[in-house]
Amino acid sequence: MKKKAETGKSLGKQIAEDLIRYILDKNLSPGAKLPNELELTRLLGVGRSTLREAVRSLVSRNVLEVRQGAGTFVTEHRLGVPDDPLGFTFIQDKEKLTMDLLEVRLFIEPRIAAQAAQTASANDIREIKALAREVEDLINTGKDHSHKDVEFHTRIAQISRNLVVPNLMPIIQQAIMLFVNTSNRVLGKETIETHRLIVNAIEEHDPIGASDAMTLHIIYNRNNLKTLFRQGKCP
Amino acid sequence: MKKKAETGKSLGKQIAEDLIRYILDKNLSPGAKLPNELELTRLLGVGRSTLREAVRSLVSRNVLEVRQGAGTFVTEHRLGVPDDPLGFTFIQDKEKLTMDLLEVRLFIEPRIAAQAAQTASANDIREIKALAREVEDLINTGKDHSHKDVEFHTRIAQISRNLVVPNLMPIIQQAIMLFVNTSNRVLGKETIETHRLIVNAIEEHDPIGASDAMTLHIIYNRNNLKTLFRQGKCP
Repeated sequence: MKKKAETGKSLGKQIAEDLIRYILDKNLSPGAKLPNELELTRLLGVGRSTLREAVRSLVSRNVLEVRQGAGTFVTEHRLGVPDDPLGFTFIQDKEKLTMDLLEVRLFIEPRIAAQAAQTASANDIREIKALAREVEDLINTGKDHSHKDVEFHTRIAQISRNLVVPNLMPIIQQAIMLFVNTSNRVLGKETIETHRLIVNAIEEHDPIGASDAMTLHIIYNRNNLKTLFRQGKCP
Repeated sequence: MKKKAETGKSLGKQIAEDLIRYILDKNLSPGAKLPNELELTRLLGVGRSTLREAVRSLVSRNVLEVRQGAGTFVTEHRLGVPDDPLGFTFIQDKEKLTMDLLEVRLFIEPRIAAQAAQTASANDIREIKALAREVEDLINTGKDHSHKDVEFHTRIAQISRNLVVPNLMPIIQQAIMLFVNTSNRVLGKETIETHRLIVNAIEEHDPIGASDAMTLHIIYNRNNLKTLFRQGKCP
């Protein structure tokens, strides 16, 4: 019994790798539909239960999405980046973790904003302006702006052309959001102001201005979070 | 049939979360052994097949390790950080990816080295000295030093006390190693020299010196990799 499970496990893993190879070879884009189960078992030369195990493991790695009744698709958002990929669940001191996450943002994002100011096209600028406006509207109407906020920062990372940071930034921001109520009014006001500064500097293709504005933005956030922690308003 | 698989899937996921909660509540350390299968099914109130699915999913998240004949253990290294957590498999341009990974190192590691220079204890310094020496010995005897090299940089990140970077650095370094033959002689010579500079600055509690030495180290690496890519020596 044990033996069988073990063999099944490594075969499932191998088939998962075959499926990844298939996605890469066929150049399937995020959102693309995979062949149906029967075809896949033929293509990969495996039984249905092994295929299902492989698909399940790729779902947990955020490579595939199974939509009930519709089929199996290549994941649309953050392909291949699973939930909690950096193991934050197992870091006990959530306050120190939050501050250290902001520190990592402070290492990375000012430089990324500077690069974005160098490389932004007219269209890129229109997009981040629109995102900044959407964040403002959400804040002003008292709604949760955190997801739009992540989109804003991720878009700037994409504009910088660095291939790693657009995958990394959302992980860090979402982890911070787990521990902090980001709909806080004070954070909101300063977010609006410093986002505007960032957008303006990128629009003016001013790398130093963009880096400074991003630094200001993150330090404001950090100071506010410190205060919230001191007041015991964070878990 | 489909319905059953779907239900099984979300139940397995739920039980996986229960297992994580169990590990956190019992404060189980990396390397700790879990109760046996029978006990776990009783504790969690599930059948053996659901439990096994949950365990498999936690193995793929690098939370648990199943050692044949010995039992199930909390993972010892990089708990909760799965393989390729940032989805690099799906980034096609491996040359640009490698250069961008080095860029991220350049954003993060000089600041981390500066912090390590402030916080390093006598024991910390002994440890990174020993690791630097081991890297040198491996390079001088023509052996692969890449794993010791990752250990050296990860140790510095731990000394800095930032909770995020020790989980992040190995992912970035190992991804670079996938694309580059790091046993290259030229990289070796400069690695020895710049590692020594880093260690000396940390020993002297000189944050600026440590930051500069780390910057030098990474830029050397970057220039060498650029040359290797131009010569077509990387995949």
